[in-house]
Amino acid sequence: MLRYLNGGESHGKMLLAILEGMPSGVPLTEAVVNLDLARRQKGYGRGGRMKIEQDRVEFVSGVRKGFTLGSPIGLQIANKDWKNWQEIMAADHGDPATQRVVTKPRPGHADLVGAIKYDHTDIRNVLEKASARETAIRVAVGAVARVLLSQFGMIIVSHVREIGGIQAETSRLSLEQIREAAEASEVRCADAPAAGKMVEKIREAKDKGDTLGGVFEVIVDNVPIGLGSYSQWDRRLGARLAFALMSIQAMKGVEIGMGFEAARRFRSEVHDEIFHDDARG
Amino acid sequence: MLRYLNGGESHGKMLLAILEGMPSGVPLTEAVVNLDLARRQKGYGRGGRMKIEQDRVEFVSGVRKGFTLGSPIGLQIANKDWKNWQEIMAADHGDPATQRVVTKPRPGHADLVGAIKYDHTDIRNVLEKASARETAIRVAVGAVARVLLSQFGMIIVSHVREIGGIQAETSRLSLEQIREAAEASEVRCADAPAAGKMVEKIREAKDKGDTLGGVFEVIVDNVPIGLGSYSQWDRRLGARLAFALMSIQAMKGVEIGMGFEAARRFRSEVHDEIFHDDARG
Amino acid sequence: MLRYLNGGESHGKMLLAILEGMPSGVPLTEAVVNLDLARRQKGYGRGGRMKIEQDRVEFVSGVRKGFTLGSPIGLQIANKDWKNWQEIMAADHGDPATQRVVTKPRPGHADLVGAIKYDHTDIRNVLEKASARETAIRVAVGAVARVLLSQFGMIIVSHVREIGGIQAETSRLSLEQIREAAEASEVRCADAPAAGKMVEKIREAKDKGDTLGGVFEVIVDNVPIGLGSYSQWDRRLGARLAFALMSIQAMKGVEIGMGFEAARRFRSEVHDEIFHDDARG
Amino acid sequence: MLRYLNGGESHGKMLLAILEGMPSGVPLTEAVVNLDLARRQKGYGRGGRMKIEQDRVEFVSGVRKGFTLGSPIGLQIANKDWKNWQEIMAADHGDPATQRVVTKPRPGHADLVGAIKYDHTDIRNVLEKASARETAIRVAVGAVARVLLSQFGMIIVSHVREIGGIQAETSRLSLEQIREAAEASEVRCADAPAAGKMVEKIREAKDKGDTLGGVFEVIVDNVPIGLGSYSQWDRRLGARLAFALMSIQAMKGVEIGMGFEAARRFRSEVHDEIFHDDARG
Repeated sequence: MLRYLNGGESHGKMLLAILEGMPSGVPLTEAVVNLDLARRQKGYGRGGRMKIEQDRVEFVSGVRKGFTLGSPIGLQIANKDWKNWQEIMAADHGDPATQRVVTKPRPGHADLVGAIKYDHTDIRNVLEKASARETAIRVAVGAVARVLLSQFGMIIVSHVREIGGIQAETSRLSLEQIREAAEASEVRCADAPAAGKMVEKIREAKDKGDTLGGVFEVIVDNVPIGLGSYSQWDRRLGARLAFALMSIQAMKGVEIGMGFEAARRFRSEVHDEIFHDDARG
Repeated sequence: MLRYLNGGESHGKMLLAILEGMPSGVPLTEAVVNLDLARRQKGYGRGGRMKIEQDRVEFVSGVRKGFTLGSPIGLQIANKDWKNWQEIMAADHGDPATQRVVTKPRPGHADLVGAIKYDHTDIRNVLEKASARETAIRVAVGAVARVLLSQFGMIIVSHVREIGGIQAETSRLSLEQIREAAEASEVRCADAPAAGKMVEKIREAKDKGDTLGGVFEVIVDNVPIGLGSYSQWDRRLGARLAFALMSIQAMKGVEIGMGFEAARRFRSEVHDEIFHDDARG
Repeated sequence: MLRYLNGGESHGKMLLAILEGMPSGVPLTEAVVNLDLARRQKGYGRGGRMKIEQDRVEFVSGVRKGFTLGSPIGLQIANKDWKNWQEIMAADHGDPATQRVVTKPRPGHADLVGAIKYDHTDIRNVLEKASARETAIRVAVGAVARVLLSQFGMIIVSHVREIGGIQAETSRLSLEQIREAAEASEVRCADAPAAGKMVEKIREAKDKGDTLGGVFEVIVDNVPIGLGSYSQWDRRLGARLAFALMSIQAMKGVEIGMGFEAARRFRSEVHDEIFHDDARG
Repeated sequence: MLRYLNGGESHGKMLLAILEGMPSGVPLTEAVVNLDLARRQKGYGRGGRMKIEQDRVEFVSGVRKGFTLGSPIGLQIANKDWKNWQEIMAADHGDPATQRVVTKPRPGHADLVGAIKYDHTDIRNVLEKASARETAIRVAVGAVARVLLSQFGMIIVSHVREIGGIQAETSRLSLEQIREAAEASEVRCADAPAAGKMVEKIREAKDKGDTLGGVFEVIVDNVPIGLGSYSQWDRRLGARLAFALMSIQAMKGVEIGMGFEAARRFRSEVHDEIFHDDARG
């Protein structure tokens, strides 16, 4: 069973993770992971931070000569901006004047709750780890997991379904067509006309000093039969996927198969039941 | 930290669970848990099984003289129908003719996948544990957890928001009004006119030999600041709640706060951000 | 991976456990487990409790027609003495006069520490779960695990090496000889003359109102290569075995291979290195 | 609850660990950890590797301005010898001639078993992680844990009790005397005459191309009442300590309190019962 821990402050020296439980002998290179890191940084209307950092992973353990060893994989992503922050974020005592203290909590963030929970007067001590910059190292870990799954023929494709209420129509596209079209789109949307409207909507938000939410879909093909189990609540595949997805910053919902739409139909109209680890006795 | 395991076949002798990590000295009676078990069995249009079983919990460990001991709480719910199944479901070898074998897998259930994964030729060996009858013992465990939370003033109210596409309108009701109205409704819906239409829709489904999906909402009040943490992916409160909810049989989606609706709006229009364990750095 | 939780007060209705992760299709009967439970109750000079209880397991889930289902195995051992304790140990409120309160903590037991930790004024609330009676249900869980291991040809033999300073000499016996001789001995010691002296020593202790410690050895044969791993501290086989063994009441030490004896020799004289999950780089 | 993962090959770029669950606001500096790392490298008769590496920790996350943040602590120890190994141990493909292949498994190490388990033809792929060099990063993690414990007044002292059969006599020394004497000894033995004999014995082993085992004692003072619990097997303090200790490379035994000596006495003669999380009901 794979497990991992990650660490790293947003303006610290690096993001890091240790991934344990990876089998040995799996072909793995930093280049493969860097592809996913680059994909993460694309997107119309991203914040300034995205332009500063051009993330590249380094394997510091667990991989040798292009293959996994079976030992824990240490992953690091250096923060390029570190030279400007090393005094402010130093582990050791130093000039308190260099603290760049944050005292105003932002709504919708972990700022206030984190400051109370961990008893911090400088909110920077909260936002540095709570930051969605963490997702860079998670993408790296996920890219390694994807390599493992690909050994079994599993294919994972994701694309943007909706931004600011504008919905993509992809029901007539094949998995490969979705993958290619999303890859080519600056908002990772496989429906080009919808993508154009999304960009417009983002521009509108930007002009107002606002931001927008969205919906993405992850499609996994060639899943072997029998992942997960009904034998105990915490082994159910759908539950574990929801656990992982809802742990991403700013995620507010997750659906599997037809999701909430299934709740609006007769059972006989629900056709795309993907997960079968449940039953109504 | 609370943890539990549950077991028990749908037509076995009993459902059982062991709940570990409960503090000592918490007032706890079987009667309190039985209230939640009774609520689980209400509902218009339930299957025949619901009428056979009138679930009552028995604490076989961890509770004494009305208080928790700090030791593991053993919970049992006897299956009233056991007398008719004890030969069929016997643990020991016996007359193979009594097996009551199931060979036709039902779509949308764990039947086929489970039979392949666990190498069963009798699908009964799958459906007995995969069955949603398991939720009875989960409700019992949850009722104990609710008693713990109530010691901190936390109040949990749930009600049905939607069945078969018919939506309840409860935005002008207080938490207490929702609770009372849902409790009085045969479909646990706090909007009486909507509830009437839901009953009608269920009747329609029944007549067609069909079933319907639905949506329920869980509202938790008086949550103390600082549950969960942004410090590691698996400690985020939203993720843990989604994990638990999506582990329930037949659940296809979960939302927190405004959920998917938030994805359709400008950030400035999203008002009910409840969870703050995230940030966009 | 197997995991389990157990519960049950020493004078409660029953001891119980849920064992999760057992593969399906493994032949398993209560009779096999009862053999190990009977073996646990043998022994010269046992306390009075041992005579009251004649432990027999009941599988209440996870086993059907003599085979495991892959679902959680629920195990129960009824406490025969329950009829005399049901009012004293009742889960529900009742006559406080029936409490049979314990207020004098015994040295060398969890009594005092447990009462402070869990804030109990009646020490019975501690000793009931801390009691070594718990080992009955652990033996039952272990017997199931042993059945699984036996499917891979693994054989587990245990015997008493030492009681009250009297040591058994078994170096010239085969595994099968040790097993047979231990089984025939009333102190489970494979060296008959030593066993005789042990019985004498126990009688001496009894006469003084005292008790004695001892040492037992567990030998596992036919272990497949590659159990455990050096890849992370908590996956090392020796560590996991020590974890399990030292969790038994009153255990004060554990050795693997030559154990402490190896510390007294040159490396070249240490011959029976059994565990190889370590290295000195 | 603290948890950690570690990684790093013995001749890789670094050893690393992520420690999660540390409270915020605990004073912590690299200097404190480096003291323990330096202590680890002392000792008469150490291997050549010890002279190459002078381990120093770097906190790459979780610590700021001398205090913990509550976020995961990333620890790294650079391998000084890396410049000579970076081609041999490179993560990426490269000249296969640089592999420095190991094909002869050493007895008493993980070499053979690891090569079979992980399907390696180059045993270097096993020994690099199995190596006891890993203990450097474990010492660093332990030093951080010790700082946390010290906030509650807990004091941890360790000293060598035995090397190659020569035993130290320290029964009349205070904890502080043991600490000081061990600190001053080149074999960390608080009994100076015994220490002299140990050095001699090590020299003898060295001359023969052999090595020696030994025994050390860890004494913890000011332990608060109620750590661990009898409530479940895996929460017992003695079991958890044994788990951690036996996970160290080359450990073959662990005792608590009087240990095996207690097994040789009447219960009334056992005086130093330290752990009370058990009971004989």
